[in-house]
Amino acid sequence: MSDPIITLTTDFGGDSPYVAAMKGVILGINPQARLIDLTHQIPPQDVHHAAFFLAEAVPFFPAQAVHVVVVDPGVGSERSLLYVEASEHRLILPDNGAVTLLESRCPIKKARRLSEPRYWRNSVSATFHGRDMIAPAAAHLSLGLCAEQLGPSVESWVRLPSPEAARTSDGWCGEVLFVDHFGNLLTNLPTQQLPDRPFPLRISATAGGRAQEYRVRRVRAYGDGQAEELIALVSSGGWWEFAVVNGNAAQRLGVQRGSRVQVVSPAGPT
Amino acid sequence: MSDPIITLTTDFGGDSPYVAAMKGVILGINPQARLIDLTHQIPPQDVHHAAFFLAEAVPFFPAQAVHVVVVDPGVGSERSLLYVEASEHRLILPDNGAVTLLESRCPIKKARRLSEPRYWRNSVSATFHGRDMIAPAAAHLSLGLCAEQLGPSVESWVRLPSPEAARTSDGWCGEVLFVDHFGNLLTNLPTQQLPDRPFPLRISATAGGRAQEYRVRRVRAYGDGQAEELIALVSSGGWWEFAVVNGNAAQRLGVQRGSRVQVVSPAGPT
Amino acid sequence: MSDPIITLTTDFGGDSPYVAAMKGVILGINPQARLIDLTHQIPPQDVHHAAFFLAEAVPFFPAQAVHVVVVDPGVGSERSLLYVEASEHRLILPDNGAVTLLESRCPIKKARRLSEPRYWRNSVSATFHGRDMIAPAAAHLSLGLCAEQLGPSVESWVRLPSPEAARTSDGWCGEVLFVDHFGNLLTNLPTQQLPDRPFPLRISATAGGRAQEYRVRRVRAYGDGQAEELIALVSSGGWWEFAVVNGNAAQRLGVQRGSRVQVVSPAGPT
Repeated sequence: MSDPIITLTTDFGGDSPYVAAMKGVILGINPQARLIDLTHQIPPQDVHHAAFFLAEAVPFFPAQAVHVVVVDPGVGSERSLLYVEASEHRLILPDNGAVTLLESRCPIKKARRLSEPRYWRNSVSATFHGRDMIAPAAAHLSLGLCAEQLGPSVESWVRLPSPEAARTSDGWCGEVLFVDHFGNLLTNLPTQQLPDRPFPLRISATAGGRAQEYRVRRVRAYGDGQAEELIALVSSGGWWEFAVVNGNAAQRLGVQRGSRVQVVSPAGPT
Repeated sequence: MSDPIITLTTDFGGDSPYVAAMKGVILGINPQARLIDLTHQIPPQDVHHAAFFLAEAVPFFPAQAVHVVVVDPGVGSERSLLYVEASEHRLILPDNGAVTLLESRCPIKKARRLSEPRYWRNSVSATFHGRDMIAPAAAHLSLGLCAEQLGPSVESWVRLPSPEAARTSDGWCGEVLFVDHFGNLLTNLPTQQLPDRPFPLRISATAGGRAQEYRVRRVRAYGDGQAEELIALVSSGGWWEFAVVNGNAAQRLGVQRGSRVQVVSPAGPT
Repeated sequence: MSDPIITLTTDFGGDSPYVAAMKGVILGINPQARLIDLTHQIPPQDVHHAAFFLAEAVPFFPAQAVHVVVVDPGVGSERSLLYVEASEHRLILPDNGAVTLLESRCPIKKARRLSEPRYWRNSVSATFHGRDMIAPAAAHLSLGLCAEQLGPSVESWVRLPSPEAARTSDGWCGEVLFVDHFGNLLTNLPTQQLPDRPFPLRISATAGGRAQEYRVRRVRAYGDGQAEELIALVSSGGWWEFAVVNGNAAQRLGVQRGSRVQVVSPAGPT
């Protein structure tokens, strides 16, 4: 029987005493808990980024882990705090849509609203529910508490609008969902439509911006491209990805999350 | 009986092989130790920042933890290394004032000067006492060593000057103690004096700079303000805090740690 | 018997869901594994930086640790993945030279090429072997798997060219191997040649750049220098180091990794 695992995902930054305080609170309740930092560098209050991050990370963990997520622009307002089971994965987080993308891969089977103060810190601040409510609830879960004790079942929760790629007269139009640390662009274009021949890509940095056109080659892996070449491939997470070999596609193309991408299939739409 | 906890706080940066070396040294002495990163992003040699960080983080940890702190501008000089018990919290760190603010919350009951080379690495470098003396001493403590073995008791240690807020003819004058990752400003203004009506705030980015004046509203939580509004509230750590809702107050006001803040009470001084 | 230790060193960045996915994969195979982050901030695809980092960090760890290293510009190409024993230290990493500098301190006794899919994830992507092959192999090792099971022995592996310092008519010429978080410069100049009197240093930011000349004083530790003084000392890792007291030498001198440094011994070459 191994010690329980609690992961931490926040937008507090790596320099934050707030993360440290949460770790202390958890270990004060369950000194056996093993803390795993996922990231503390979600861009401040960026729930869309958190949603992508969780969908890419949480499914790889064993079911015993409890995932604490604190990206909470609405702290102190009327938003609820949730306990969620997405397939077998357990999360505690504010009800702001950060589970949206995870849910599309791991259906939510149960959700509860945190309402039982006995599982919170004695004194709850107005500005830091991560430390005062989420962290202690996760610590209690890791001690074996039944999720039913946390609060009443809920049937609905916030879902972010999920942009879907659309067919155009000569291909597909979608959007950049995530820019990774290497500048690779992960998009919502449907990978089964990825052409196997070179094809044109139109991309615009902002919704209203003028589209630039590039020639892109489809490869299997980064190593199959030439240095500095713009390539398209299926990412390790199953997304249609654009990358610059040994370079930074986001910088080269001047795009960011939310930028529109349009591909023209060499054979037209299929 | 759970495995012993050792936390790490340094100014080495997240990219540092020095942090990794300290972790290796600790695990070489006590392979059971559970290492908890608090932060490695204290600004280089910024003892004031470390002091605030420790005061906000350490009190939340259980007593069994040993806190290793390496922000050490004086390494290789005559400064001592200390073992400190602040209430029940145990720290090992250079004697440079980084415990000052923690001490005001958790009085120091015992302090010792590290003097026993048997608890250090065999070879002690002139430039990295964190790896060669602090980390091994912490590892030995986590194995159950009595603190008395580390070295002789000391009765005094370095304390940083603690800036105190002062009354003015029409309000209070204080200073920014900490700027967090969101750009929120934590000050030494006395929270019991926080007006419950909107009030003017004068703020100057540097000691000699010209003060700008802003209108501030007191709220209970970020969610009670309007987007982009400048608000004042009691922080989760009990400080008088200024924030911009969904924004960055430090950038908006052009201030940093040490900037002076002056508030004018709507009713004049109380 | 303590829980097994697995360290992680990558160039994925602290904001990366890829690191989180690797942690999940390891804990899914061995829920007892204790994960230790070394760094995730190796500059993207910078194998030279990784080589220096590993040489400075790995030797401090106990033999039981398994070191996972994912800096992998050649993912998806024909490069192999290796299991390596450097002295008693065990690493799993792409065969791209990142062990070169560690090897000069801890000779490689065994190396194997990962070839057994039974120790990988069921589905191996073309772009993320860290998650699909390296992380699971490390997890299996931490469960007690014999390294022999991972794949066949290999007798050769990639070695990076190791720049050696050279004598000049009046001193030594070498290069900056690493710039640390404080801007200190670690060089390949031979420390036994470090003059004990002040001496001139010529330094050029780029291979073809014009050399600037500075006066440098040799000290034992940072604390022995004056504020803002340019000093030379033996680093905690045994390198000839240049530093600016309470300052940033890399910024002051405008140099980076690979910059050439030339010292003139006060007594001429010895």
